[in-house]
Amino acid sequence: MDLQQRIASRQGEFLLFAFTPPRLATGPRKAQEIADVTFERLAHLGVDGLILYDIDDEADRNPAERPFPFLPTMDPADYLERHLEAWPTPVVVYRATAKYSEDELRAWIASQDPATRMTVLVGASSREKPVATTLRRAQELRAEVAPDLLLGAVAIPERHTGRGDEHLRLIAKQEAGCSYFVTQVVYDVNAAKNLVSDYAYECRDRGLDPLPIAFTFSVCGSMKTLEFLRWLGVDVPRWIENDLRHADDTLDASVEHAEATALELIPFCRHLGVPCGLNIESVSIRKVEIEASVRLAERLGGNLARGSA
Amino acid sequence: MDLQQRIASRQGEFLLFAFTPPRLATGPRKAQEIADVTFERLAHLGVDGLILYDIDDEADRNPAERPFPFLPTMDPADYLERHLEAWPTPVVVYRATAKYSEDELRAWIASQDPATRMTVLVGASSREKPVATTLRRAQELRAEVAPDLLLGAVAIPERHTGRGDEHLRLIAKQEAGCSYFVTQVVYDVNAAKNLVSDYAYECRDRGLDPLPIAFTFSVCGSMKTLEFLRWLGVDVPRWIENDLRHADDTLDASVEHAEATALELIPFCRHLGVPCGLNIESVSIRKVEIEASVRLAERLGGNLARGSA
Repeated sequence: MDLQQRIASRQGEFLLFAFTPPRLATGPRKAQEIADVTFERLAHLGVDGLILYDIDDEADRNPAERPFPFLPTMDPADYLERHLEAWPTPVVVYRATAKYSEDELRAWIASQDPATRMTVLVGASSREKPVATTLRRAQELRAEVAPDLLLGAVAIPERHTGRGDEHLRLIAKQEAGCSYFVTQVVYDVNAAKNLVSDYAYECRDRGLDPLPIAFTFSVCGSMKTLEFLRWLGVDVPRWIENDLRHADDTLDASVEHAEATALELIPFCRHLGVPCGLNIESVSIRKVEIEASVRLAERLGGNLARGSA
Repeated sequence: MDLQQRIASRQGEFLLFAFTPPRLATGPRKAQEIADVTFERLAHLGVDGLILYDIDDEADRNPAERPFPFLPTMDPADYLERHLEAWPTPVVVYRATAKYSEDELRAWIASQDPATRMTVLVGASSREKPVATTLRRAQELRAEVAPDLLLGAVAIPERHTGRGDEHLRLIAKQEAGCSYFVTQVVYDVNAAKNLVSDYAYECRDRGLDPLPIAFTFSVCGSMKTLEFLRWLGVDVPRWIENDLRHADDTLDASVEHAEATALELIPFCRHLGVPCGLNIESVSIRKVEIEASVRLAERLGGNLARGSA
């Protein structure tokens, strides 16, 4: 079964690897070099799919200074078509809908081959942001012009901790045509469990089949990366922060924490009947952190029920 | 090694079982019957010690209606001397210091045999409460009249979640002569880990040896008991609440949750070099819940490093 079949049938588990396109200022030759390195780094992983993020300047959503400067990146769809065309699995392209006009989004969605492409549509990062197309409208466009293109949405356990209604947002996204979710980076396993549990029981009460949720994990090689994770909205429990701060090797310790968290969530989801996937990334672009995220994906892949994959 | 030696040497782990004396209105014959049943129920457990709580009407600390009505209970020290004198291990008697005059407390403390008795002094449950003796003053009295009587204090992970300074309160209690801590009932393992971790690193920074922490677990046989746990200030994560609500057998499910939480905390404490103990109780006085708490203690006892005990 390929990724789309697993998601559509709500069976089987899957492994994704996510990254961000190179900086906008990157020339075509350098962009191809980067793509080639990425290709080589990931080729042996046996992932079921890639994710390409669509980065937006989110300075407006957090008044604190961004620990790493914001640098505009290449459009993920362009980068994919120009430099990663040969990648053998389906690719999930994120779209920050606020950045694009309806016409742009409609044209892009219509041009995607559902056999090899999927998308996750993401709404504006704050209410103050100018919005070219709302998330709701973009979801409607997808339903109109490409109902077969598998649509995903973000799930944010931290929002559930604060407001307690993230499971209802997931249900609303499900009703708007989404067929899978990808979480924000998970460090707080309890927050993730609370969301999955409330979602599972809400589905049961409404007679809905729960959709697959891909839990995102990122390694963390320094206190600066930790600060960046927090800036992105990730709750890092104090005990994990203390452990990373005092570890002989922060990066290795973070790989172990992420692995332990993933290995706690997989059986938890199985028990509740919520299909699950894992999505591995590195929020930092440092080479050692990217390589550690590849090691994390290697270690986790074998723990998923992926049939012959 | 007996309980006092384990605590004083900060080595070895220990198992405690806690309960509340019978209602104040209980006649002497009935009180002895209750004590005999308790004795019989606990005799085979091989606990290292008992805890007897000193219950105060805490209606002032929580404006919500108490799920179980407050009924005054016998004085734990009186109950112990009159009805449980034959119990073979050390007994920890709680003292809600606000209830007693300095003279009463001084006389009681001075009369305790440090070989068979320990105490945990507890402060007022709210700032609005009339206070006969403050916790601080009671700690001073203990240091003056019975420096050998092992003094403990309560540790509240939930307070750490809210204010982030519970580890500093533990250090202050340590400096006031405490030699162990007993937590409030733990359902939120993350909150407990955050407190232990912050406490361990604070001790390290100050060159102090961490004191033993006994983690308290209570089973939960009904949604009413869950409501009571919440009323007492215990954070029960949503996913555990959901699981208990939908379980075929809520009580059995709660035993499994408590066991899993304890088995997560024991290696966590060992890794951080914080000596740990377990304290099992039932916040409900229903017979099935008390019996389930005994089963929980049975299941957990073998997981502690208790030497030949």
